[in-house]
Amino acid sequence: MTRIVRTVAELREQVRAWKAAGEQVGLIPTMGALHEGHLSLVRLAQTKVKRTVASVFVNPKQFAPHEDFDAYPRGEARDAELLESAGCDLLFAPNAAEMYPQGFSTTINLTGVSEPLEGAARPQFFGGVATVVTKLLIQAQPDIAVFGEKDYQQLQVIRRVTRDLDLPVEIVGAPTARAEDGLALSSRNAYLSAQERAAAVALPDAMKAAIAAVQAGERIETAEAAGKAALAAAGFRQVDYFDFRDADDLSRLGPDALNGAKARLLAAAWLGKTRLIDNMGA
Amino acid sequence: MTRIVRTVAELREQVRAWKAAGEQVGLIPTMGALHEGHLSLVRLAQTKVKRTVASVFVNPKQFAPHEDFDAYPRGEARDAELLESAGCDLLFAPNAAEMYPQGFSTTINLTGVSEPLEGAARPQFFGGVATVVTKLLIQAQPDIAVFGEKDYQQLQVIRRVTRDLDLPVEIVGAPTARAEDGLALSSRNAYLSAQERAAAVALPDAMKAAIAAVQAGERIETAEAAGKAALAAAGFRQVDYFDFRDADDLSRLGPDALNGAKARLLAAAWLGKTRLIDNMGA
Repeated sequence: MTRIVRTVAELREQVRAWKAAGEQVGLIPTMGALHEGHLSLVRLAQTKVKRTVASVFVNPKQFAPHEDFDAYPRGEARDAELLESAGCDLLFAPNAAEMYPQGFSTTINLTGVSEPLEGAARPQFFGGVATVVTKLLIQAQPDIAVFGEKDYQQLQVIRRVTRDLDLPVEIVGAPTARAEDGLALSSRNAYLSAQERAAAVALPDAMKAAIAAVQAGERIETAEAAGKAALAAAGFRQVDYFDFRDADDLSRLGPDALNGAKARLLAAAWLGKTRLIDNMGA
Repeated sequence: MTRIVRTVAELREQVRAWKAAGEQVGLIPTMGALHEGHLSLVRLAQTKVKRTVASVFVNPKQFAPHEDFDAYPRGEARDAELLESAGCDLLFAPNAAEMYPQGFSTTINLTGVSEPLEGAARPQFFGGVATVVTKLLIQAQPDIAVFGEKDYQQLQVIRRVTRDLDLPVEIVGAPTARAEDGLALSSRNAYLSAQERAAAVALPDAMKAAIAAVQAGERIETAEAAGKAALAAAGFRQVDYFDFRDADDLSRLGPDALNGAKARLLAAAWLGKTRLIDNMGA
């Protein structure tokens, strides 16, 4: 049975008891609306540690005023059922007053890895992510914490802040869960019409093609342009980015050959009203 | 013998060993140039916990480019001797590369308590303080950490960030150590000429008089004006502030009566080239 706790004190008491019994603990931070991708993070944690804690908290600090904080999907009963089915030991579901009590005044900001790509369009987003994840890591004091590679820039921001603040936790990146045709699983896929869903596979396909091309010696700039053209041809109405980046700090690579750099291809593109993101190692 | 360690790994190993032996640990963060005021923090910690760790690190992040980072006094041998004499168990003396390795990108910023007074003149100061103190608290994982009330706004910033980030540590404020005539101990007092040193006592005297006045029902605004006038009459060439503030969040009190508010009088004023600060409960 997945136990639900709502306060930091209860969370800590449970984690302390597990650690005292010699059991390692893994944290899986989420904003709820759980799907198979989240459950794969729980299962990955279970291969590494004895006890798993999932947190569900829709973090107001990572939404801008015009964004959809109020409309963000919430369904704790279903989330708890899914966690139960995955064998997760504890669900930490604090309310906003527990996370950000009256007088809360602190923000954790990063430069560098947080600035391009998703950070360019949403300047306060990664500050909000870094602040809430740091709090969760200090609250739960897990041995490991698992984040999906689906949100690769978020994963790198969390790796950076964890190193910078000396948090004694191992950050584990989990491979992106994908549908059979290769599309990355996402809550947003539900917004796609049948026709859009069929077209969406062009995103992972264009990414695989671009990676194969640069690995065969193609110039980065050329591969990026070809990828964008392929998405346009498949019906994507806008490509926010389709970039080869340094896999650690997300600085720009190119325009020339990869030359053995540790690279990551990251893309964000619009299919109708739905913005899809994906990334792959290159 | 005060042991000296220079790496987070050695620090953690020692603290872990003490905790495993059931011994509580107190941290006293400093920037070195130790004097009797710092040693009083060590002694206060010793009344509460078995083991004390002093850190000495001149934090580049809390100096602005035009400030005196390079000229800031450093003397580890003397600091170590003084800590030895006070019975401190461990001196943590990391270098800048240990605290801020290549690629370091994170800053902890506060609103509210960090903004007025010292924060108004030095906009990045408390961000630098909050960042390094958070790192030290996560590195050392002490049961308590002791800070002087001499730097009262810094103490309140640290209380705030510690609460906001859920750091499992008790922050202890230590009463300001004072010379016999009442002047707060400070490394900067050494800059005063004999004549200035004699005049300096006007600062604590004016503060005591202002507190007595408001406690007797005087208007705050009137008591502040009288305090500033007394400092000018004693030869202070400029008063940066002489303010009654909320003792927790340092928001402005006044202009009228205290009315039982939990207040703190904070002052900063120049005697020749030396800027003195002080504060007292009101």
